[in-house]
Amino acid sequence: MTLTRYLPILDWGRRYDREAFASDAVAALIVTIMLIPQSLAYAMLAGLPPEAGIYASIAPILLYAVFGTSRALAVGPVAVVSLLTAAAVGQVAEAGTAGYAVAALTLAFLSGAFLLALGLFRLGFIANFLSHPVIAGFITASGILIAASQLKHILGIPASGDTLFEMAYELGRGLDRVNLPTLVIGVTATAFLFWVRRGLKPLLRRAGLGPKAADYATKAGPVAAVVATTLAVWALGLDSAGVGIVGTVPQGLPPLTLPGFSPDLISQLLLPAILISVIGFVESISVAQTLAAKRRQRIDPDQELIGLGAANLGAAFTGGYPVTGGFARSVVNYDAGAATPAAGAFTAAGLMVAALALTPLVHYLPNATLAATIIVAVTSLVDFSILSRTWTYARADFLAVAATILLTLALGVEAGVSAGVLLSIALHLYKTSKPHVAEVGRIAGTEHFRNILRHEVETDPSVVFLRPDESLYFVNARFLEDMVLARIADAPALRHVVLVCSAVNDVDFSALESLEALNARLREAGIGLHLAEVKGPVMDRLQGSHLPGDLNGRVFLTQNAAWSCLVEGGAVNEGRGGWRIARAS
Amino acid sequence: MTLTRYLPILDWGRRYDREAFASDAVAALIVTIMLIPQSLAYAMLAGLPPEAGIYASIAPILLYAVFGTSRALAVGPVAVVSLLTAAAVGQVAEAGTAGYAVAALTLAFLSGAFLLALGLFRLGFIANFLSHPVIAGFITASGILIAASQLKHILGIPASGDTLFEMAYELGRGLDRVNLPTLVIGVTATAFLFWVRRGLKPLLRRAGLGPKAADYATKAGPVAAVVATTLAVWALGLDSAGVGIVGTVPQGLPPLTLPGFSPDLISQLLLPAILISVIGFVESISVAQTLAAKRRQRIDPDQELIGLGAANLGAAFTGGYPVTGGFARSVVNYDAGAATPAAGAFTAAGLMVAALALTPLVHYLPNATLAATIIVAVTSLVDFSILSRTWTYARADFLAVAATILLTLALGVEAGVSAGVLLSIALHLYKTSKPHVAEVGRIAGTEHFRNILRHEVETDPSVVFLRPDESLYFVNARFLEDMVLARIADAPALRHVVLVCSAVNDVDFSALESLEALNARLREAGIGLHLAEVKGPVMDRLQGSHLPGDLNGRVFLTQNAAWSCLVEGGAVNEGRGGWRIARAS
Repeated sequence: MTLTRYLPILDWGRRYDREAFASDAVAALIVTIMLIPQSLAYAMLAGLPPEAGIYASIAPILLYAVFGTSRALAVGPVAVVSLLTAAAVGQVAEAGTAGYAVAALTLAFLSGAFLLALGLFRLGFIANFLSHPVIAGFITASGILIAASQLKHILGIPASGDTLFEMAYELGRGLDRVNLPTLVIGVTATAFLFWVRRGLKPLLRRAGLGPKAADYATKAGPVAAVVATTLAVWALGLDSAGVGIVGTVPQGLPPLTLPGFSPDLISQLLLPAILISVIGFVESISVAQTLAAKRRQRIDPDQELIGLGAANLGAAFTGGYPVTGGFARSVVNYDAGAATPAAGAFTAAGLMVAALALTPLVHYLPNATLAATIIVAVTSLVDFSILSRTWTYARADFLAVAATILLTLALGVEAGVSAGVLLSIALHLYKTSKPHVAEVGRIAGTEHFRNILRHEVETDPSVVFLRPDESLYFVNARFLEDMVLARIADAPALRHVVLVCSAVNDVDFSALESLEALNARLREAGIGLHLAEVKGPVMDRLQGSHLPGDLNGRVFLTQNAAWSCLVEGGAVNEGRGGWRIARAS
Repeated sequence: MTLTRYLPILDWGRRYDREAFASDAVAALIVTIMLIPQSLAYAMLAGLPPEAGIYASIAPILLYAVFGTSRALAVGPVAVVSLLTAAAVGQVAEAGTAGYAVAALTLAFLSGAFLLALGLFRLGFIANFLSHPVIAGFITASGILIAASQLKHILGIPASGDTLFEMAYELGRGLDRVNLPTLVIGVTATAFLFWVRRGLKPLLRRAGLGPKAADYATKAGPVAAVVATTLAVWALGLDSAGVGIVGTVPQGLPPLTLPGFSPDLISQLLLPAILISVIGFVESISVAQTLAAKRRQRIDPDQELIGLGAANLGAAFTGGYPVTGGFARSVVNYDAGAATPAAGAFTAAGLMVAALALTPLVHYLPNATLAATIIVAVTSLVDFSILSRTWTYARADFLAVAATILLTLALGVEAGVSAGVLLSIALHLYKTSKPHVAEVGRIAGTEHFRNILRHEVETDPSVVFLRPDESLYFVNARFLEDMVLARIADAPALRHVVLVCSAVNDVDFSALESLEALNARLREAGIGLHLAEVKGPVMDRLQGSHLPGDLNGRVFLTQNAAWSCLVEGGAVNEGRGGWRIARAS
């Protein structure tokens, strides 16, 4: 049982049949064709030699097939993680150097180890600290940064930079050295790929092609662009005219490589690795769950961590760099009918063939074309609607999105996403620090109590029912105390304060002391302090404190019991005696 | 009006009369006598020349008298802040150097500016991020560190260190160089002061002294010790026998001084200054409110920030160091009958006289005696009961206390309190990340719904009522989704899920998207998703989203309405039409 949990392959592998094989094989073929240019492109984005992209797609896919739980997830280099890699590794080594490649391996190793640890200790929930708005803002900003980072290949000028400003500045400086043939190739390829995306499919459908066929043809767009521009460069010898090309890519299977283990390097890359792991995990899990839902399959997030961890460790020892489950490739894999993780294994096989035999063919492939494929791919990441959606729903979430986008563009990916996470936590704490406290009254003739500001209700000058709409803990403990004292200050007729605790999910030690202080103050002022609708878990805890004994009032099971006792003066067999009942709330 | 708010002196000053003057003057005299040795002692603790302690008690008291709102608070050097000062300044300068004094002034300036800013922007609530357990743990650990730091004066050996281990190590190394006369003086003084505290008062009462008189006599204990040991050292010429003495203290009023403004120094001291400000504010405000409560007076926390800010700025420009409202001195001031802040002004006058005329008298005062007064004073800070109290009440709070105490002792004050704050926030977020979700049923024959695990209730196999006991936000958004999906997975008969939102105080954007995803999944599974008891503010917000429109179910005002509609199949004029009613909850 446990073994099957940690090795899902034992589960689906046992029931593997010819039918599954057929659909897996087809899917693998389609994904492989799509992955070849994509892998080269993302490696370029990460500042690594092209083959690194292909290597990063082989061992990781195989390992994920063994440990992963998703049937359709395709693991490998993805745009955002490639950008994060470039940002992190760029801080410790010069692009193009051997140290750069080793740093990338180390990053993959650290991130793999971290993911594995999270999975084994079942700590997947920490990914929840990335709120949806922060992720959305980060992905959008990353898309912009990625597209911007590729302009230099389209223009054929050298440029670098981790932030939008740096990139713009460097590009501006180089504008006088734009390489015309490169520009022509880049712009043409970009235009062509956008057209393939928007215009080709409807055209083919009108030409009578089936929807699936049309779809595949569209997916093949990048390959066509690659072939055409490669031939053009080769035929016209444009490389000698200054067009940047992929150049010689070593033929052969992924090499065995060793990440660097110098404490210095590790300490520099640890935080970026953690960041990459969490972001990669979030992207991967959301893709996996979306696809699993369509087929009524379930994803085990903690096992996913193990699968991704193994994949990254695989990348670290086979000349790759950090990987995760990619959206585009997974969707293609799914649409192409991948039935089991075996599809991934076959894709790996296909890429091995490519690595062995096809690399000479991409020698004349211009970087501008790869840049075009990246730019077109990432435009789907950019979605500013999150700004308007959060603005209309909740200002705090809008603030988190806006800050994440701006800071990511202005300061780079790591600063941006970190700031976003911290800000969203701070905003949440701030919200809870000044909770909404409703004063409630009874709807005449019912047992329902509602906010006096929102509803026609009965009230009594000698009793006030206050319903704090928040758990009571150290951040807001003093707030309630001050608020109640202020409320009684301008109500001389007041004799009883009833705290309606239906929305109080926790009372921590600070809040307990604050309640005891409030209780003492109210006693001095000759005013009773009562509790109503206390939740079971909260009451269990309060039982262990002095408050119940010291309380200058009673604990009522319901607001209505408090009302009939305090307002209508009716006898209620509750209060002290009511603990047992109250505990059942 | 606003002017009076920012200058409380205009309020009480207008109504100042002879009676108030009399009681203020008496209080001032008593406090002055007590403050002279205390100021010298705390200056020594902060690593500053003795006069700095007196200077730090003059201008700050005057400024607080103008801007502060507390009638009894006495502002000046206090033990914990002196320790924090030593720790912070010790990192940027060598004790005894001019740079050290300037750094202390800068620290006071930064902390004053920070407090002032907080007050003007009314941001006093940030002090709430220090939970009671963290403060209690920190104060206890600080008391131990302070006492330990004074042992070197009792033993008459040189020693330093910011952590308990460092101190113990240094003392151990010096044990062979213990100065006997110093040890005799130190031990005698300490024993005497402890006896004064515990044994003298009852003795005097039995001797027929009135309680107040006995109290003052007890308070005069430190002065007696100072006088006796000073005479002993002078008479026996013990200073030449290696007994460390206060030595020459310049005669004169507080000098005008200028803090250092080098960006380097400021960047090094900024964080410590913020820490000192917050801790000082928390200590001061709690003292002020305790005393104010006894006389039915109110404290304005934001104005207190302004008062303390002004006091620290005053200290920065008159040769002092960071100050705050002290517990001991304030209680004495209060007991002695201080009626208005004018008492503080008179105390300042008294200390000016001391600074002008009395400083030669303390030339032979041994440091051991000052150390003794400090040790006896801080023992009242040490209170381990917080450990047991939090342990019995809530493990999370216990963890925060224990961590704060251990880390403060092991790593020093700054690391300790910072870790405590971060840990308590992390623990709170963790608690909310896996909220308690109660499955509720109806208590037969009533409209009350209770946890099925705690109470005999009616349930229906086709409808499940789930009550998440937590606000829904990004940290737990996915948890609820997974939890509900898991719940329906093993309940084939299930047709309706009702989310009872009486404890949901907020639904942020992440939780909204999670609810929409849940709604979509349940629709696919042919299960209805309903909401009940949604709070007004939450409903207002949801109105602005797509959820109400897309909801695969209805919104009920009460759980009972949901029950009668879904379980008993009764018609309820709510659901879609019920929004208006629901909003009123």
